[in-house]
Amino acid sequence: MPKPIPDYSLYVITGESFSKGRSTEDVIRQAILGGATVIQLREKEYCGKELIRVGKLLRDMTREMGVTFIVNDRVDVAFAVDADGVHLGQDDLPIEVARQILGPDKIVGISAGNMDEVLAAQARGADYVGLGPVFATGTKSDAGEAVGLDLVKQVCARATIPVVGIGGIKANNAAQVIEAGAAGVSVITAVVSADDVTEAARQLRHQIDLAKGLKG
Amino acid sequence: MPKPIPDYSLYVITGESFSKGRSTEDVIRQAILGGATVIQLREKEYCGKELIRVGKLLRDMTREMGVTFIVNDRVDVAFAVDADGVHLGQDDLPIEVARQILGPDKIVGISAGNMDEVLAAQARGADYVGLGPVFATGTKSDAGEAVGLDLVKQVCARATIPVVGIGGIKANNAAQVIEAGAAGVSVITAVVSADDVTEAARQLRHQIDLAKGLKG
Ligand code: NI
Repeated sequence: MPKPIPDYSLYVITGESFSKGRSTEDVIRQAILGGATVIQLREKEYCGKELIRVGKLLRDMTREMGVTFIVNDRVDVAFAVDADGVHLGQDDLPIEVARQILGPDKIVGISAGNMDEVLAAQARGADYVGLGPVFATGTKSDAGEAVGLDLVKQVCARATIPVVGIGGIKANNAAQVIEAGAAGVSVITAVVSADDVTEAARQLRHQIDLAKGLKG
Repeated sequence: MPKPIPDYSLYVITGESFSKGRSTEDVIRQAILGGATVIQLREKEYCGKELIRVGKLLRDMTREMGVTFIVNDRVDVAFAVDADGVHLGQDDLPIEVARQILGPDKIVGISAGNMDEVLAAQARGADYVGLGPVFATGTKSDAGEAVGLDLVKQVCARATIPVVGIGGIKANNAAQVIEAGAAGVSVITAVVSADDVTEAARQLRHQIDLAKGLKG
C-alpha cells in the first residue's frame, strides 16, 4: 500500500520567538482549530530535551486533532516523538539518513530554492518539497531572494511530488500560490504572530480552499 | 559477545573555536599522534551538513588510526557517519532513543554532575559517564561548579561503568583524576588550544599512563 499523501493545504511552522509570549502549545492548538493541516516543529534554539518535551506535546495534540506532524532538521527528535516525518533543509542531514532512521512510511520533506533542488529532492525520494521563498520575507534570515510565482508554476508543472510554497505568504496572496499549482502554503508569522491565531488560520485556509475549488 | 570497552585514557573533544584557526581535521590528527584514545565531535554551531562533512573525515581518520569516535548530542549524525557512539548531555535526547537508533553495539555516554546522575545513567544502560567539571573551567559556560576529586573517588568506587573525568584537566592534574579511579580524562583546550597539539597530548597521555601504572 503506498503511503497516504497528507493534506498540505495549510502548513504551519512553529516560531516561539514570533508568538508574542504565548506558548507554542496554545498557539498551535489555535492554528489547528482555524484549519491548519500540517504542523512543523521548528525551534533552532531548543536543546534536545526541550525539542522532545514540546515535540511530545505537539505529537499528542496533532494526533488527537487529526493533523500531520513534522519535525524540522532533527531526524533523531522526529524518531523520538514518533512524528509523521521530518523536514530537511539543504544544509541538514541527507535524505537517505532520514529514510534509514525513520523507515519508508514516514514523510521526508526537503527545502528547495530552485528547479534543480526540487528535481534532486524528488530523485532522492523526497515526499514533498517546500519551495521558496515565494515572496520576500523577514522571518528566515538565510532564506535568500524571493523565487516568485513563475518558478512555483514551472516547478509545479514538472514535479511529481507535492510542492508547498513558503515565504511571505499571507491571506492576501495565498490563493496565487495555490493557483500556481502548489499543494499548500507554509507560514510562520502569518499565523503564529497574529493576535487572533484561529482567525488568521481560518482566513488563510478559506483562501486556499477557494483557490483549490477554482483550480478544478 | 559483550561489546568491547574502549580505552578511555585520553578522550579529546573537538573545539573549532579554541583551535586557533587550525582545522579540526589537522588538530585531531595531531592529537591522535600524541596519544588520544577517543575523539568526540562536538561543534554546537555546526549545521547538520557541516557535522556530516567533518564527522565523515574524523570517522575515516579515527578508523585508520585505531581510535574510538563519538559524536556529541546528535544521534542522527552519529548514525549517519557510523560513529562508534554518541555522547548525550542531561539536556539531550534520552538514552533509550539513542539505543533504538544506533542499536545495542554502539557506545552511549552520558554527562553527569553528581552521584544521582551517574547512577541514573548507569541504570538506564549508559556505557560510560563523563563526570564533571572536576576542576573549575572556562570552556563550557553551562558546566556548573567544580565537583572536585572527592566526588570522582566516590563515584568511581560505586559505578560499575567507566567514569571519564572532564573539566579543567591538564597535564599537571590529570594523574589525580586517574588516581581517583577514573578510566580516563576528557579535555578540549588542554589539547586543541596547545601550540604543539601532539606534544600536549603526549604529555597528558604520559601522566595518565604513569598514574594507571601506579594504581595497579
Ligand atoms: Ni540544520
